[in-house]
Amino acid sequence: MPLDTPKDPALAAKADLDPQNFALANCIRALTIDAVNAANSGHPGAPMGMADAATVLFRNHLKFDALNPDWPDRDRFVLSNGHASMLLYSLLHLTGYEDMTLEQVKNFRQWGAITAGHPEYGHAKGIETTTGPLGQGIATAVGMALAERALAGEFGADLVDHHTYVMLGDGCLQEGIGQEAISLAGHLGLGKLIVLYDDNSITIDGPTSISFSEDVPARLAACGWHVQTCDGHDGKALDAAITAAKAETGKPSLIAMKTIIGFGSPNRAGSYSVHGAPLGQDEGALTKEALGWASEPFAIPEDLGAEWRKIGTRGADARAAWEERLAASDHREALTARLTGELPEGYEAAVADARKALFDAPKKAATRKASQMALEALAPALPAMIGGSADLTGSNLTRVKAVDSQYTRDAPGRYIGYGVREFGMAAAMNGINLHGGFIAYGGTFLVFSDYARNAIRLSALMGVGTIYVMTHDSIGLGEDGPTHQPIEHLASLRAIPGLTVLRPADVIETLEAWDIAIRARDVPSLLALSRQDVPQLRLEPGTENLTAKGAYVIRQFGEGRDVTLIATGTEVAIAVTAAEALSAEGLSVAVVSMPSWELFDAQPADYRAEVLGTAPRIAIEAAGKFGWTRYVASEDDVIGMTGFGASAPIDRLYAEFGITSDAIVARAKALTNR
Amino acid sequence: MPLDTPKDPALAAKADLDPQNFALANCIRALTIDAVNAANSGHPGAPMGMADAATVLFRNHLKFDALNPDWPDRDRFVLSNGHASMLLYSLLHLTGYEDMTLEQVKNFRQWGAITAGHPEYGHAKGIETTTGPLGQGIATAVGMALAERALAGEFGADLVDHHTYVMLGDGCLQEGIGQEAISLAGHLGLGKLIVLYDDNSITIDGPTSISFSEDVPARLAACGWHVQTCDGHDGKALDAAITAAKAETGKPSLIAMKTIIGFGSPNRAGSYSVHGAPLGQDEGALTKEALGWASEPFAIPEDLGAEWRKIGTRGADARAAWEERLAASDHREALTARLTGELPEGYEAAVADARKALFDAPKKAATRKASQMALEALAPALPAMIGGSADLTGSNLTRVKAVDSQYTRDAPGRYIGYGVREFGMAAAMNGINLHGGFIAYGGTFLVFSDYARNAIRLSALMGVGTIYVMTHDSIGLGEDGPTHQPIEHLASLRAIPGLTVLRPADVIETLEAWDIAIRARDVPSLLALSRQDVPQLRLEPGTENLTAKGAYVIRQFGEGRDVTLIATGTEVAIAVTAAEALSAEGLSVAVVSMPSWELFDAQPADYRAEVLGTAPRIAIEAAGKFGWTRYVASEDDVIGMTGFGASAPIDRLYAEFGITSDAIVARAKALTNR
Repeated sequence: MPLDTPKDPALAAKADLDPQNFALANCIRALTIDAVNAANSGHPGAPMGMADAATVLFRNHLKFDALNPDWPDRDRFVLSNGHASMLLYSLLHLTGYEDMTLEQVKNFRQWGAITAGHPEYGHAKGIETTTGPLGQGIATAVGMALAERALAGEFGADLVDHHTYVMLGDGCLQEGIGQEAISLAGHLGLGKLIVLYDDNSITIDGPTSISFSEDVPARLAACGWHVQTCDGHDGKALDAAITAAKAETGKPSLIAMKTIIGFGSPNRAGSYSVHGAPLGQDEGALTKEALGWASEPFAIPEDLGAEWRKIGTRGADARAAWEERLAASDHREALTARLTGELPEGYEAAVADARKALFDAPKKAATRKASQMALEALAPALPAMIGGSADLTGSNLTRVKAVDSQYTRDAPGRYIGYGVREFGMAAAMNGINLHGGFIAYGGTFLVFSDYARNAIRLSALMGVGTIYVMTHDSIGLGEDGPTHQPIEHLASLRAIPGLTVLRPADVIETLEAWDIAIRARDVPSLLALSRQDVPQLRLEPGTENLTAKGAYVIRQFGEGRDVTLIATGTEVAIAVTAAEALSAEGLSVAVVSMPSWELFDAQPADYRAEVLGTAPRIAIEAAGKFGWTRYVASEDDVIGMTGFGASAPIDRLYAEFGITSDAIVARAKALTNR
Repeated sequence: MPLDTPKDPALAAKADLDPQNFALANCIRALTIDAVNAANSGHPGAPMGMADAATVLFRNHLKFDALNPDWPDRDRFVLSNGHASMLLYSLLHLTGYEDMTLEQVKNFRQWGAITAGHPEYGHAKGIETTTGPLGQGIATAVGMALAERALAGEFGADLVDHHTYVMLGDGCLQEGIGQEAISLAGHLGLGKLIVLYDDNSITIDGPTSISFSEDVPARLAACGWHVQTCDGHDGKALDAAITAAKAETGKPSLIAMKTIIGFGSPNRAGSYSVHGAPLGQDEGALTKEALGWASEPFAIPEDLGAEWRKIGTRGADARAAWEERLAASDHREALTARLTGELPEGYEAAVADARKALFDAPKKAATRKASQMALEALAPALPAMIGGSADLTGSNLTRVKAVDSQYTRDAPGRYIGYGVREFGMAAAMNGINLHGGFIAYGGTFLVFSDYARNAIRLSALMGVGTIYVMTHDSIGLGEDGPTHQPIEHLASLRAIPGLTVLRPADVIETLEAWDIAIRARDVPSLLALSRQDVPQLRLEPGTENLTAKGAYVIRQFGEGRDVTLIATGTEVAIAVTAAEALSAEGLSVAVVSMPSWELFDAQPADYRAEVLGTAPRIAIEAAGKFGWTRYVASEDDVIGMTGFGASAPIDRLYAEFGITSDAIVARAKALTNR
């Protein structure tokens, strides 16, 4: 095809390395300039610098079919430096993804558009995960690569065989979670994970030399990665590097691409000024001129547009062949069920049997132990379950017989030793769930939800059903002391929109909580579980999942109500003890178990009114009081914590911090004037 | 001194390497075994494995004086793997720190003891920082080393010249924050930071090979570190390694010590079973026998005890000499003031002048800009201020003229480019503040407080006055979209005990917030600041810091009150507009600006009652509604967010999410039946 050649000798030299690739990449650069200018906000620098590499990737390597974007065996592409979103939107538009219209590109960063400032999962096909919070893209991609390998292990390489490609910048490599992901991927030898590093020597504050001077390839090599470096504007060199990365199947690959941020901009290329601000009309025009780009804004020359659309259907034959293989495969039904997230036939029965067993022979147990019992009962019916822990398996009790095979570099398995990497674990679980075929759950201490917090937020923002198993959920963990005792965590997690927090009171509620979490494939669930034993409070056999109502009256003493006690988790038993004492003194008391605020608030108003009642209410929870005024009149009516915990045996802690049935009784009497 | 020699040939061989060191280390091992057994909980493995190295460090290198533990020029010792707390308690007890009595050691992990499960800053002298949440010890130590270098730059090496030593385990190296700290320390060439890595090949879940197989020395070398490896039970080799580490002044040093966890235990050494469970009486006895240890529980042989106490006063002469140098120095007064945290004389005047300037010529400005103006005004009077940002300087506006010198590997400065490392920054700031001599502040986007969250928690738990400058504090940031728009963050930060969250409404409140934060040397402060402009609402000159009251009536319309509007930050101006409209319709309205819940809740009850009034209340905040029922009757009375934000220009977002004066007016009318 005819190409204009840049006049600037340096640019011309780059263009000459692979003229067609350069011309195709200019389509991305031009759309980026125009969309960011139109929005008058955004990040043009990275898309312009990474355009050549992305073009090589989509043109020669990425396995995808733009007209069938949900093809399960497609390669995954994750733009970890999500602020470069115009790179992704340009690629999706150019290759012909139907929902990524020119109108959407023109409406970049506007209300209602699918072209948000950072790529949002669910907005458009081809956005495999939400990115923007740095480091999480690569960590999520590690989960996708883990899932691919595990699924291939189950169903064979003729049905599951795809790569996970990541583009990232310096920020993702500076963030700690980036290293967690790198270390885990290297440890497990995820050979089909290929990372293209946009090594442009620029961060927001200026040259990376202000804050970042390590030898990145050497660091990744130390972590078991295959590493290469190349010119990020040399299409042929990039192609060779990606080919070599694919050939290395035992290690994840890094391609450190030396790039120029804002490539093509005569006055801003290579400077931090092009990172996060529009080029503007003048510099935009100068840049296009320098690149030899003569089209109107948002217009793509006919020949280049046609070439890009051809790239978009490059994978159509492979996709059709894959569908034929699937149709002919013995695995067809099973794999389809797994990919659609359908629950297996035996699942309902497994839940029912587990319930019945607990009603038949009630158990006193820590809810973390109850969680393990639930997993033991349900996991055999759920081949999709893939578990793990951030190096607290014996404390979280996340490992069960059906989910026991260790995921190693030699063979995939159903249990992942994530190491002491809570944040990396959480993001990887998001990636496993986004990939499809699995239900990922993983454990740590509730207090360390702090470390993983932004990945939990992304689960909720994306609507991904990751299951967080958070044990040691209060001062009840005892001697490890205040650094390990969650106080503000329940409140701060309940404050996250779209996350279901479950704090079950006994073995039955824990089983019910697991059932809720397993069914919730587009809502993340977080189970807060105890270290200490609790009695089984639910003793009356029944098939209804009461935990799903969020709250319910678990004990009623007397007729009517003088006072309502609302408790969660381990404190429900204490509330029952207090209620017994109050009842003995002639008061009518309802004890409400409230395992989940979010589920309760979703109930009809009349149900909520009935459960809460009109009598004075007291809340009991061994955690900070913050937020409980949603249900009680004042924080004075909360039996909870007002500061941090302490290091001591559990009974002493509950007594010293006044989380006792006596305290409840005293407050109830005060409220009812007895 | 006479020593029993272990009978086990392997143990005997280790003992032979440096018999006296071995015998002294056995004191630590024996105390650890006894204390953990007495508590019937704790972590014996790591202290037993690290005892030899710690002995070498305290015996030959660490500059300290146990009887003068606050000596400012002491070396800092940070036990980053805080679960090994008995190592530290043993060392403090043996070397004669007065508060670390035998009684305290015997009460390990008991209520009221200073010997908590994990070392708690403030419990005992010699505990330089709270550790336990893994990775944060090393990151905090980086801050200490940064501070030492900066203080030495100001006051000279004859007054400031000490090392920062860290012991850590695999967990600290797996946590992402560990890498953030390593990368930053390497970048800045912190040559007086020396890390001893307890490379024992064991984590909680089993051998490290389950989850961790990288070449740690190679990784750190790639990050610019000086690295050595040695036998962690060979006193002489350890001594040589520490000596070599001290000799390398241009790079931080790692000494990877190959150790045996639970060293000495015949049946559990080298196994994960010794990590976090007591040895018990039987194995404890066998271990002592194997080590050649014949004393009664908690008893230290006379000669060894004397030797340890001698070690404790090893630094007394150096300390006395330092005090003489200080007394004779021109810097005496200035350095003393800095170390005691006294505010300089000119500070009050700087605050008063800045106030007056704003009242004289009111300013419309984003509160992030107001923050920069406050810093410009106050920082010249505060040589202790040391600033920075996690690569968002131009957005956080944290850099001002007086705090402009860049901290580089060549020279310390007052502005630190922390890189895209929010968690590492937060922990480093804690370290700078713990070290003394500085007031550290640093910026990122409020949404990324998530990344730094557990370090913010540790600021609060320790009572350290770190100042968090968190900008882009709502959907008001606009087009960057939901990944960058904080929703639940204000609530989740307010839920942390002991943290002062400040969300100022205009330039005056922002100045007042800075004044509060600067004075709060033992309480962390977090400033939530806007991207968008707000008018100056405080126009009536006055000298009282009203922000310090947490909330106050900023506008009163009419006599009495029909309704009270409570707002924070950028929404106070919207509330004022609504109040004007309501007033025009004949309602009496009070607008309450509530920049800080914590400060308001600390006011006398009558003041709180007066501000809140008895009329119906509406809260307005462009954030999640969670928690506002502390002040209003129901979340229906909160004009706020119920889900995540979106990518669009700011005005569109406020309109679409209904955070408008119209919405306030409508709710006020409904509540007052107009």
